Amino acid sequence: MTELLPNHFNGTWQTGTGQGTVLTDPVLGTELVRVDATGLDLAAGFAFAREQGGQALRALTYVQRAGLLAAAQKVLQANRDAYYDIATANSGTVKNDSAVDIDGGIFTLGTYAKLGEGLGERFFLADGDSARLGKDPLFQSQHVLTPTRGVALFINAFNFPSWGLWEKAAPALLSGVPVIVKPATATAWLTQRMVKDVVDAGIFPAGALSIVCGSSAGLMDQLQPFDVVSFTGSADTAAVIRSHPAVTQRSVRVNIEADSVNSAVLLPGEAAGSEAFDLFVKEVAREMTVKSGQKCTAIRRVLVPEELYAAAAQAISARLAKTTVGNPRNEAVRMGALVSRAQLVAVKDGLEYLKTQAEVLHDGSAAALVDADANIACCVGPTLLGVRNAAGSDSADRIHDTEVFGPVATLVPYRTTGGSMDHAFALVRRGQGSLVASLYGSNPQALAHAAAELADSHGRVHIISPDVAALQTGHGNVMPQSLHGGPGRAGGGEELGGLRALNFYHRRTAIQASTTVLAQLQ
Amino acid sequence: MTELLPNHFNGTWQTGTGQGTVLTDPVLGTELVRVDATGLDLAAGFAFAREQGGQALRALTYVQRAGLLAAAQKVLQANRDAYYDIATANSGTVKNDSAVDIDGGIFTLGTYAKLGEGLGERFFLADGDSARLGKDPLFQSQHVLTPTRGVALFINAFNFPSWGLWEKAAPALLSGVPVIVKPATATAWLTQRMVKDVVDAGIFPAGALSIVCGSSAGLMDQLQPFDVVSFTGSADTAAVIRSHPAVTQRSVRVNIEADSVNSAVLLPGEAAGSEAFDLFVKEVAREMTVKSGQKCTAIRRVLVPEELYAAAAQAISARLAKTTVGNPRNEAVRMGALVSRAQLVAVKDGLEYLKTQAEVLHDGSAAALVDADANIACCVGPTLLGVRNAAGSDSADRIHDTEVFGPVATLVPYRTTGGSMDHAFALVRRGQGSLVASLYGSNPQALAHAAAELADSHGRVHIISPDVAALQTGHGNVMPQSLHGGPGRAGGGEELGGLRALNFYHRRTAIQASTTVLAQLQ
Repeated sequence: MTELLPNHFNGTWQTGTGQGTVLTDPVLGTELVRVDATGLDLAAGFAFAREQGGQALRALTYVQRAGLLAAAQKVLQANRDAYYDIATANSGTVKNDSAVDIDGGIFTLGTYAKLGEGLGERFFLADGDSARLGKDPLFQSQHVLTPTRGVALFINAFNFPSWGLWEKAAPALLSGVPVIVKPATATAWLTQRMVKDVVDAGIFPAGALSIVCGSSAGLMDQLQPFDVVSFTGSADTAAVIRSHPAVTQRSVRVNIEADSVNSAVLLPGEAAGSEAFDLFVKEVAREMTVKSGQKCTAIRRVLVPEELYAAAAQAISARLAKTTVGNPRNEAVRMGALVSRAQLVAVKDGLEYLKTQAEVLHDGSAAALVDADANIACCVGPTLLGVRNAAGSDSADRIHDTEVFGPVATLVPYRTTGGSMDHAFALVRRGQGSLVASLYGSNPQALAHAAAELADSHGRVHIISPDVAALQTGHGNVMPQSLHGGPGRAGGGEELGGLRALNFYHRRTAIQASTTVLAQLQ
Repeated sequence: MTELLPNHFNGTWQTGTGQGTVLTDPVLGTELVRVDATGLDLAAGFAFAREQGGQALRALTYVQRAGLLAAAQKVLQANRDAYYDIATANSGTVKNDSAVDIDGGIFTLGTYAKLGEGLGERFFLADGDSARLGKDPLFQSQHVLTPTRGVALFINAFNFPSWGLWEKAAPALLSGVPVIVKPATATAWLTQRMVKDVVDAGIFPAGALSIVCGSSAGLMDQLQPFDVVSFTGSADTAAVIRSHPAVTQRSVRVNIEADSVNSAVLLPGEAAGSEAFDLFVKEVAREMTVKSGQKCTAIRRVLVPEELYAAAAQAISARLAKTTVGNPRNEAVRMGALVSRAQLVAVKDGLEYLKTQAEVLHDGSAAALVDADANIACCVGPTLLGVRNAAGSDSADRIHDTEVFGPVATLVPYRTTGGSMDHAFALVRRGQGSLVASLYGSNPQALAHAAAELADSHGRVHIISPDVAALQTGHGNVMPQSLHGGPGRAGGGEELGGLRALNFYHRRTAIQASTTVLAQLQ
C-alpha cells in the first residue's frame, strides 16, 4: 500500500486510524499516497492550537513573526524541487502551471514577511488617528486592532495546494493567529509536505501550524467565538459552512471564496488587429489554458463588441489550436490534466450544459493527447463557445450563471450603440458578483470609467492597455498587494490586499480614554 | 380604534390590510396606535428602493448626500417635542432617557452630515495609496470603495427607535445606499414618525428611505447579492437571520448586534472612597438605571477587587436607593418603565435565574412606584446582585452568560494576588465577547495595559480616570466617533466608528492598471 501521510495536530505527527483515501496521478492513473483523519482528538487539537499556539504567537511582536515567515520562506525555497515533483504527479500540471501555485505561494509568504517588518516591535496595531469626543481634547477615542484569541481554520480548494495555504497562513501567522489547514483531499500531498518541511524546521512555536488531511467532518463543530474560518471552494459547501451553528450562533467570523464567472471585456473602438485587440486575444487564450482553466480567477466570459465577434472567435481559436495537451512530463506539452476523473466528468457535463445555449467556436476535444492515454488521463482540450449575437448574450442565462471549472470560456458579444458600454456592463453584472474582470483598450478615460462602473461587483478590475503590455501581471494572477475575493456569487470574501488581509485576524476596538492613558498604549 | 400607521414603501404611503398590532403605553396600559404590513408587495417595494432609490442616491456626490443628512437633521430638530411625547407614551421613559434615544439619534445623523462634507464631490472613495505591482512603477494597484448597488435592510430593536434608525441610516444614505427600516413593533411609532417627517419634507430622492412596520415576515426573502442587512436584537433571531438563504447562499452581507454581558472593572489599588472608586460607583448606578437598563451597552457585571466587595455593594446600593421609579410624567421620577409586559416578565424571570447563583445586595422591588399602578405599569426597581467572593465569581456561570435586559447588575469580586489583574481578565472574558468594558483607576499605565488585554473581546473599552471625570462620555453612551459592536456573543458586528461605518455599505476593489489609467480614476 502507498504511504499514509501523517497529520500534524495537537503538537505531534499522527496518522489517522482508518484505511485512508488514495491520492492519484491524474495523468497516469497511478496511486501516490493516502490521507486519513480518522480518530484524531479534535477537541484536544483545537484547544492546543488555540491555547499553546495562540499564546506563543501573541507573545511575539509583528516584526518577530515576520521573521518567522521569512525563515519559513527559506525552507520552502530550499525544497522547491520536491514540490514540483509532487505537483507534476498529483496535480498533473506542466512546470509553468506548477509555478503559479508553488512559487506564487512562496512569493506571497515572502511578501507578508516584508510587510510585517514595517509593523514594528509591537503587539497590536493602531487603526487610524485618535478622535476627540467633545470640545475638550483631553478625552479621545483611539481605535486599535488586536489579534483574535482563537484559531484560524482553513478549508482549502484542490487547485492551489501551495498558494491556497500560504496566501491564508501568512496573514494569519503574521497577525499572531494559529492556523489549522484542511487541504482538499485530491491534492493534499503538496500542502502536507510544505507544512511538514516548515514544522520539521522548528520555525514556528508548537501549535502555530497544524494540518488535518482527509475528511473535514467535525472540524466546524470545534469552532469557538474568537476563531475564524476561511473557505475556498464550491458555493454549496460555502452555504453549509455559513449555516453551521459556529457561524450562526457563535459569531465565528467567516471568509468565503466560491464560484465566479469572471469576465474579460474588449472596449469599443479597438479594431481587430489593433494592439488592444491582440492583447485581449492573447490574455483570453492564456487564461483559459493556465492550470487547465482550474483557477477561480480564470476568464469564463469573453465580451466583445458585437461587430468583432467573428474576428475575436477566429483569433482566440487560432491561439487555442496551438495548445498541446497531455502528459506534463513531456516538454512539448503546454497544458496538463484536470485534477481528477470527477473534475473531468464535471467539466464535460458543464460543457454540454452550456452548449445548449451556445455554439462551439473551437473544439479542443478533437486534438489527440500527447504522451497520455485518453482512457486514463484526466485531460481535456480548451473549448471556446460563443452566443453569436447580442440578443444571444441576453437570452443565454447559463453562460452568466455557470462556472465550468476547466479550459472553457464563452464569447459574449455586446451592443455598442453610440459607443456606449451599458450593454457590456449589464452583461458583466449578470455574473452576480465576480472575483475579477479585465478590461482591454487604449483610451485611459474610457478604461477608468469602465473600471469604476464595474468595481462594485468585483473584488478586482484588471486593466490591460498597450502601455503596460509587458508589465501587466495577468488577469488571473492574484497579487498579494491586491484584494482577492468578490461579492455575491463569488462569496463576499476579502483576502490579501497587502496589510488589509490582517483585518480578518484582528478585532477592531475603540479605546476611549484620557490622552494621558492613550499615550501609554504602546 | 386607534390610528393605523401607514408604511412608506414602494414610493408611497400605504397601510397594511390587516387589523394590525396595537402599541401600548407601558405605564398607563392605554392603546396608542396600530401597525401592520399585511398585503404589501414586497418584491415591488424592494425593487423600487434598489433601482429608483439606489440610482438616485448614487447620482449624488458624498458632499451632496451629506447635505441631505444635514437637511434631515434640521427637520428632526424642528419636531423634537413630538418625539419626546411619543417616547414618553410608547417607551415609558423619563425625559433624560428619551434624550439618549432622540437627541442621540439626531446628533449621530448630524455627525455623519459633517463627516460627509469632507469626502468630496466624488462618487467613490479611494482606499489607501496605490501600490506598485513590480519593479517598474508604471503598473500599479489602487483600491477603491464603491457604494454597493443594493438596499440596506435594518431590522431594529425596541430600545432605540430613534438612535437605532439614524445610527444605521446615516452611514447608509451617506454611502449612497437606500434604506428599508423594520422597527421593532413595540416602539415602532417613533421610528415611523421620524421617517414620516423626513419623507414628507421631500429631502431624499424617492425610494431612498422606506419603512415597514409590523411583521418582518418575508423581508429577508427579498434580499439579493448586493443588498445588506443589519440586525440589532436577540441572539436567537440573529441566528435565524444568519441561517437565511439570502446570507448563506446569496452572500448578503450581514451585521449583527446581539446580546452582551458588559463589564465595569475597578482596578486594584483604588481604595474605597478614592476618586476612582467614587467614579466607578457613580457610573455603575447610572448605567444600571438609564433607560431602566434597556441598553445593549449597559453594565451587567461589576468587577471589584475581592476586598472591596462589601464597600462597593454598600456604595452602589446607596445610590440605587435614591432612584425613584414610576410614571415618567411625574418630575420626581428618575426611572420610568420597561417597554412592555413581556419585557417585565423577562426581567423578573431573568432575576430569578441569576438569584440561584447570587445574593441580593439591593432589592429595588421593595420601593413603591411613584404615580403608577404596579398592576399595570411595566416598572421594576433597580436590583444589585452579588456573588460574595472570588470563588463565587468563578463558579457562577449564569452571571457571565445571561443578559437580563433591565436595571439589573451583579457585583463580581476578583482576586488581586500580587496586584495582578489576571483573574479579572479571565472573568471578563467569560462574557465571550461584549460590546463594551469600562475600566476605573488612577494609574495610566495600568489602565492602558488592561485596555490592551481586553480589547480583543470588546468593541469598545471605556476608561474613566479622575482627570476626565467631567469629560468622559459614559460607559453606555455610543459615540459616533467610536466603533459600536463586539465579537462573539455580542454578534461580531461593527457599526459607527466615524467613517469606518461606511465600509459596510461599500465594496472594496483593487483596480490594477497603468498609472495613466489610474490618474483618470476620479
